[in-house]
Amino acid sequence: MTKINSNYQKLQAGYLFPEIGKRVRAFAAANPAAKIIRLGIGDVVLPLPAPVLEAMHAAVDELGKPESFKGYGPEQGYDFLLQPISEHFKSQGADVAPDEIFVSDGSKCDTANIQEIFAVDNVIAVTDPVYPVYVDTNVMAGRTGEAANGRYGKLVYMPTTAENGFDPEIPKGPSPGSHVDLIYLCSPNNPTGAVMPRSSLEKWVAYAKATEAIILFDAAYEAFITEPGMVHSIYEIPGAREVAIEFHSLSKTAGFTGTRCAYTVVPKDLKARNDKGEQVAVHSLWNRRQTTKFNGVSYPIQKAAAAVFTPAGAKAIRENIEYYMENARIIREGLRAAGYTVYGGINAPYIWLKVPGNSTSWNFFDKLLNEAQVVGTPGSGFGSCGEGYFRLSAFGFRENVLEAVERIKSRVKP
Amino acid sequence: MTKINSNYQKLQAGYLFPEIGKRVRAFAAANPAAKIIRLGIGDVVLPLPAPVLEAMHAAVDELGKPESFKGYGPEQGYDFLLQPISEHFKSQGADVAPDEIFVSDGSKCDTANIQEIFAVDNVIAVTDPVYPVYVDTNVMAGRTGEAANGRYGKLVYMPTTAENGFDPEIPKGPSPGSHVDLIYLCSPNNPTGAVMPRSSLEKWVAYAKATEAIILFDAAYEAFITEPGMVHSIYEIPGAREVAIEFHSLSKTAGFTGTRCAYTVVPKDLKARNDKGEQVAVHSLWNRRQTTKFNGVSYPIQKAAAAVFTPAGAKAIRENIEYYMENARIIREGLRAAGYTVYGGINAPYIWLKVPGNSTSWNFFDKLLNEAQVVGTPGSGFGSCGEGYFRLSAFGFRENVLEAVERIKSRVKP
Repeated sequence: MTKINSNYQKLQAGYLFPEIGKRVRAFAAANPAAKIIRLGIGDVVLPLPAPVLEAMHAAVDELGKPESFKGYGPEQGYDFLLQPISEHFKSQGADVAPDEIFVSDGSKCDTANIQEIFAVDNVIAVTDPVYPVYVDTNVMAGRTGEAANGRYGKLVYMPTTAENGFDPEIPKGPSPGSHVDLIYLCSPNNPTGAVMPRSSLEKWVAYAKATEAIILFDAAYEAFITEPGMVHSIYEIPGAREVAIEFHSLSKTAGFTGTRCAYTVVPKDLKARNDKGEQVAVHSLWNRRQTTKFNGVSYPIQKAAAAVFTPAGAKAIRENIEYYMENARIIREGLRAAGYTVYGGINAPYIWLKVPGNSTSWNFFDKLLNEAQVVGTPGSGFGSCGEGYFRLSAFGFRENVLEAVERIKSRVKP
Repeated sequence: MTKINSNYQKLQAGYLFPEIGKRVRAFAAANPAAKIIRLGIGDVVLPLPAPVLEAMHAAVDELGKPESFKGYGPEQGYDFLLQPISEHFKSQGADVAPDEIFVSDGSKCDTANIQEIFAVDNVIAVTDPVYPVYVDTNVMAGRTGEAANGRYGKLVYMPTTAENGFDPEIPKGPSPGSHVDLIYLCSPNNPTGAVMPRSSLEKWVAYAKATEAIILFDAAYEAFITEPGMVHSIYEIPGAREVAIEFHSLSKTAGFTGTRCAYTVVPKDLKARNDKGEQVAVHSLWNRRQTTKFNGVSYPIQKAAAAVFTPAGAKAIRENIEYYMENARIIREGLRAAGYTVYGGINAPYIWLKVPGNSTSWNFFDKLLNEAQVVGTPGSGFGSCGEGYFRLSAFGFRENVLEAVERIKSRVKP
């Protein structure tokens, strides 16, 4: 008799985005003439720039000729992509070698799969609010208890709210219930838009080193940082190579949400313990995971990704990022002028606003949809500390962003 | 203190293809003038055909315009690909609906990931010899004991050799040590090249139904079947929708080893039990797994894949398959004429030959490399019942295949 992985049944049924879709569809059906503006799911809208398209076309041509056809490539990615990524890290003051980089088809996949190489009895720490994939994949793996009041048993939640400047506190020490093993941090943060200060990251690295914890650092939005002096890669922090894995994605950076390419860094200095207490290189575990369960990213996609790191590609990508960050400025300043309390939007493409009054995130969602036909994301969907907050994404066409802000200002007073 | 998944340390260190690579590199270094012909790793060589290239170019162009740009797609794949795949199944007499198909970036990934949705205490059955990914991913998940003499504890190995016509026997019954829960079958088989007879598959389906086992059916090579009446999809067998998951790949079928696209069928009729003994739809588990841990296949790659199912695409793909199967015929008949005992090569792109005398697979590997400069794959690399066998792949350019056969005939007498 085949038994299922019953941990799946602990997962909360109502996933955020399907519920949003359901409510939007219902509203659209009842109001067929309404022009709905979607600033909910963080999906890019600008087309891929010319240098990226040219590289992809050239690679497709290569696949059409016997002398340049490509079969299986290295699971970790081609050198023509690993080299420029490594150089990009070095230009940011992060020491990352090409053979410490693993190219993949998405940071969602990598942040989801990384937990496999660690034991089931590690204690997991996540911020609250949090990107749901970190939590759900640990539920599936059996690292949590049952769900109650929007939280899973055994998981350590670190509140990340306006009260602490959206900067999670370090667990108090190695006493039971406070020590953690695997720590998911995301900076710039989805959904709050906050960047973790260098001084905080230094404390996290010191904590991880002292307690042999590992930081899983999601830097998917680092390219959206506009303020100088902010940390783009955790490897800028001395000692981080011994305690951190870092995730990067071209999804938002280069408009690759439908094209699919990402990369993850596992430094060779990173160690964890086996069940005999011996130290083991985490790099070799992830390499074994990827070579056994993955076959590398499509050749033309890797060629397109490499074009992002050329001068022409980097310039084009930068222009797109600036377009989105101008959207972010328009949303942030427009809502602030209208009397809203807003966070984020300076170093991240997300605006995290405080829901006015004592209303809930979902009530504000309905109000915004009904009164302004603008779709956002209820903060409570990211965790119980997200209740009372609301996320707006800067990924949209300018005219829609301008109109959405005007509608909110005129129709949805705080 | 972070602990690793110590199951990884049970994995046998010497993976097959790295060891082959090492020996070939050593030979090449010692014999720089030698022309080595590689019929080892099953990697395609023919370029992608025109209809596939055209579809991919057109999709890349779409990504360059705001009105046709594509961001996140459905994790399960686009309808434009699911529909023709479903129709292809129906043309083969297999009832598979579009929403039972999950498009992915590889069958290696899917056959590796599928075990996640099942409990750790299921009993796993694999053939011997076997595609190593089925075994290794279950080792990683903790479903096996330690390795000894080339086999892992707790795994049920089903010998698949010339003695039983390469057709594995069904476990004797539900008594301890004989019943199995998850059964990996691969037909046409990698490495033996054998196709499971319809009558055997009927028995397997009946067994699975009677014992509530699930068959994980790898049909990656079904397009290489040349004999009429053979089973291309397990869903041709009545009742299979209630007991089987099926894996398909465009890697070999359409030359996509470097382009990456595959698909897996999870019928809605398939159920398994949770820890309370209740029946649960496996389709919803796999859907949850894919939507949480995967973000869909790159848009231009899905467009290229859809072109494989057009009349022009199918014709071009068929020509490539026939080219490889003519290679297979040349190898099979050439070696047979030279006095070798050979299997496979009629309905699969692999020739499985009996190593002459009492020599081992690795000794024959060295002999073939030294005396004919031909690289194959030692059968023992696929399991202990593969000892004494040797795999040659039909994926190569005709002139190399002809030369390899001539060299073996003239220099490596059985």
